[in-house]
Amino acid sequence: MPKSDNYAIGIDLGGTFIKFGIVTQKGKIVKKLSKDTRAAEGPKVVTKQILKGISELLEGEKYKIHGIGIGAPGVVSSKKGTVENAPNLPGWGKVHLGKIISEATGIRCVVENDANAAAVGEMIFGAGKTYDSFVMVTLGTGVGGGIILNRKLFKGEFGAAGEIGHITIDYKGEKCNCGSYGCIEAYLGNTHLVDRVQAELEEAPESMINRMIAGGTRPLSPQIISEAAVAGDSFAIEMIKESGRLLGYAMASVSNLLDVSTIIIGGGVAGFGNTLLESVKSGMTQRLLKSLQPRVKVLRAKLKNEAGIKGASSMVFYK
Amino acid sequence: MPKSDNYAIGIDLGGTFIKFGIVTQKGKIVKKLSKDTRAAEGPKVVTKQILKGISELLEGEKYKIHGIGIGAPGVVSSKKGTVENAPNLPGWGKVHLGKIISEATGIRCVVENDANAAAVGEMIFGAGKTYDSFVMVTLGTGVGGGIILNRKLFKGEFGAAGEIGHITIDYKGEKCNCGSYGCIEAYLGNTHLVDRVQAELEEAPESMINRMIAGGTRPLSPQIISEAAVAGDSFAIEMIKESGRLLGYAMASVSNLLDVSTIIIGGGVAGFGNTLLESVKSGMTQRLLKSLQPRVKVLRAKLKNEAGIKGASSMVFYK
Repeated sequence: MPKSDNYAIGIDLGGTFIKFGIVTQKGKIVKKLSKDTRAAEGPKVVTKQILKGISELLEGEKYKIHGIGIGAPGVVSSKKGTVENAPNLPGWGKVHLGKIISEATGIRCVVENDANAAAVGEMIFGAGKTYDSFVMVTLGTGVGGGIILNRKLFKGEFGAAGEIGHITIDYKGEKCNCGSYGCIEAYLGNTHLVDRVQAELEEAPESMINRMIAGGTRPLSPQIISEAAVAGDSFAIEMIKESGRLLGYAMASVSNLLDVSTIIIGGGVAGFGNTLLESVKSGMTQRLLKSLQPRVKVLRAKLKNEAGIKGASSMVFYK
Repeated sequence: MPKSDNYAIGIDLGGTFIKFGIVTQKGKIVKKLSKDTRAAEGPKVVTKQILKGISELLEGEKYKIHGIGIGAPGVVSSKKGTVENAPNLPGWGKVHLGKIISEATGIRCVVENDANAAAVGEMIFGAGKTYDSFVMVTLGTGVGGGIILNRKLFKGEFGAAGEIGHITIDYKGEKCNCGSYGCIEAYLGNTHLVDRVQAELEEAPESMINRMIAGGTRPLSPQIISEAAVAGDSFAIEMIKESGRLLGYAMASVSNLLDVSTIIIGGGVAGFGNTLLESVKSGMTQRLLKSLQPRVKVLRAKLKNEAGIKGASSMVFYK
């Protein structure tokens, strides 16, 4: 194995686990491990966990490490390397994470919001390689986003840009965790999605989902909806199509505003496959200004497993 | 009058009139005139009207003209100086307006979309002077917009960015001229606004608007709504507040996406005054992500009369 290549450490800082990987310049993970975040014990313990993970990762290895990239939740100032008010990380007012890690390891450290890091990951390693500008949408517990304009991550005035999940599609619509109404996250975030499908399921006794959740004794999940759709369940397919169209409507607002027509979709719900992608495309195209319609592209993210590690590591090669 | 200063010609190319002005570097108009557009006769005749207007404007004057700025409807490539598919200008497929005007006059010519030019006008001469980033909203027949990021006009991939009017607030909402549903323009564009107020008026026999439109024999207009509100008519005030809140909801989507918190509002309906501005601010703040809420600023545009001429001329001083 050639160890003269450039490598980066990518760290995906989640609320439950911290995932670590050594990643090549081409986006291949050559070594990885995971540690408990121990988020409840506050930022000092979490930071120690990060440092422990890094030293275990490097133990006995001779990779030439170009830098460390950390993808973190919350508002991240990548200039200052600070993480602010991270959800799922109690006690994190404002933490100078980049400085702490680079001083302790002697390795340059770049910190970025996890959704933004995912967008940069797709630009450097994935589906965005050949596009100058695109919007990345990550479907998971929440709906995250990152905006790439002319091969640069767009951060906004204070580093908080790209909150695709909080584009409203209906001001009288579903209540969102953020306090607003009708945000696209209130339709496509995992629990919202499951709740919506669960409610509609009452009108669809013929759907195989009823059997799959054993009449309500097993919890419904995006995975089950996906499996039912693959098996041809028309209710499940229609639910996925509706979700896609709604996301498409939100993306039409985004595209009308930014004049960016390429959308890359990643995260768990993207497992809904082409049915989702095609309905996003049709929903978006229907609602876009005519001059933008012919340019719409909706692509699936390429970084799947360990997208968090790869996205974080891509920040090293990007900067 | 000192004629050694830098002057620009600003041209506001509308569907009915073309307005011309000689403008100082401080945004003062020292001479102006207007000509019929003669839009129905096609781009050649319109271009001749522009050239006639310029030569009449300069006749007998010794101002040192730094350049010509044209604000035009439609998608404008400011790099190429082309105007494409301008609404209200029949027959304009793609016209190299900048080149034609600069070759005929020997003066540098910058062409920009009129809503974008209004945003640059506010940045150079008006309410945006002291802000690095803001979103300009122009309320008129349509709802136009322009985005300033770090003192630069944001154009998007193909020059079409900033279509604030086509941000959806309700995907099941009012039909918009663009073909989509629930665009903010379908609530606040002049005719939509008037239609909405007219419909609600049936439930408000006590409103003085009924007398002002003589029981329906005179047409309702934004001007009448504004006058009724100023006179204390609670129905008119509530209609303006509702309009402001709806615009605020759209701006929350914009601000969540761009992390830009300063909004400048111009155009006719901005005559609704502080009632409008304050309700935009409260609607927007209610719906924004918490970290962005404290930074919201909603300002009134400073370029009022002849904003079109001034905005167009500002492109000369900007570039």
